[in-house]
Amino acid sequence: MAAMDAGRKIYELYCLENQKHEIIDRAKTMNIKIKTLNKQKMNQMFTNTHQGFGALVEDYTMISLEQALKKPGKKLYVMLDSLEDPHNLGAILRSADAFNVSGIIIPKNRSVKITPTVIKVSTGAIEYVDMINVTNLNQAIDQLKKHNIWVVGLDLDTEQTLDDIHVETDLCVVLGSEGKGISRLVRENCDYTVKIPMFGHVNSLNVSVTAGIVIQDIVSRRGSVHV
Amino acid sequence: MAAMDAGRKIYELYCLENQKHEIIDRAKTMNIKIKTLNKQKMNQMFTNTHQGFGALVEDYTMISLEQALKKPGKKLYVMLDSLEDPHNLGAILRSADAFNVSGIIIPKNRSVKITPTVIKVSTGAIEYVDMINVTNLNQAIDQLKKHNIWVVGLDLDTEQTLDDIHVETDLCVVLGSEGKGISRLVRENCDYTVKIPMFGHVNSLNVSVTAGIVIQDIVSRRGSVHV
Repeated sequence: MAAMDAGRKIYELYCLENQKHEIIDRAKTMNIKIKTLNKQKMNQMFTNTHQGFGALVEDYTMISLEQALKKPGKKLYVMLDSLEDPHNLGAILRSADAFNVSGIIIPKNRSVKITPTVIKVSTGAIEYVDMINVTNLNQAIDQLKKHNIWVVGLDLDTEQTLDDIHVETDLCVVLGSEGKGISRLVRENCDYTVKIPMFGHVNSLNVSVTAGIVIQDIVSRRGSVHV
Repeated sequence: MAAMDAGRKIYELYCLENQKHEIIDRAKTMNIKIKTLNKQKMNQMFTNTHQGFGALVEDYTMISLEQALKKPGKKLYVMLDSLEDPHNLGAILRSADAFNVSGIIIPKNRSVKITPTVIKVSTGAIEYVDMINVTNLNQAIDQLKKHNIWVVGLDLDTEQTLDDIHVETDLCVVLGSEGKGISRLVRENCDYTVKIPMFGHVNSLNVSVTAGIVIQDIVSRRGSVHV
């Protein structure tokens, strides 16, 4: 439904037999080819839980940082250094859509891909968030800096906290992997690092929760500045 | 490791053959029975990714609300109305530990159980967070109110936002399921409801992200009041 709303090209819609659903009516009015499959075929074709529907759609393309930087508006990028879990990327996409993030920057090689799981977990948010593909994170950081975008790393090994983020500047927030954090070179390349103060025993959050907290905090502080 | 740190009774440790790891040495010094298994046996026994180790441990017990209420300190409970996904509960437990939440209140019947997936995803946080089992959420809310704990529902259908939470009072935050939100009766029973302002197309966050944002916001505002 989100793909339809967003105008994504849909080549074929696959439906589990004996179903009625708004999506079928919409597909008909849009002249989309509809195929009805039995349960076995559906499960074969869509390894993830399909909730009775699947579709063959136009590929999700990534844009370059150059393209992204040309877009207008206050910038808030999220850079993901070696994120691997598709569930986490899906959840981060939802937060990115909800809080109007300018784009998600991920490295071409050593990172999570846009899989059916990512798309499903994003509950449609993938349609509205720019995915920005870069060859090298450190080169991307240099490019961001040249455009006066401040690069802030999330890191436990710092005294500065969320409150120390200067929200009035254009920003790119860098998040590392859950186990290892941000890689050394990337961290050294950040303009500054901050942490979310924590008081527990385990002292680590799910990375999509960290992303949500940081993004919401920046956006809400920007909002109260501008209002 | 977290179970060992927390003093949980461990009956047996199962290890994939040909491994060296700190956990084996610790188990030996603690006189824990160690069994070495081949890959096939490990995979049979532990359906989730086991990373080479598994254990037979003392059951995770839940406490009653009466027991929870007797504990000292400023209160911040999180009540989960019909949460079903074990990954989300695991992630919420991590946030609850990180921000020193007083306990997670879940209904006995129609809710997620403490499964191996929950325990694994919580990365040890389950050892430090009180899980509070109640028969009926509305009765629990009445009981909380009698103890001067204000009950705040997260709901999209309200004009009040996070900023309107009175953090100086004892609190219980109620979170609903992702699809349906809080159930009608529970929502009506809340002292007040608030939303996280969102600006996107999809307008919903992963429930563990919502939980993280709300908890962090309350705890950080309480911190700056007290300092």
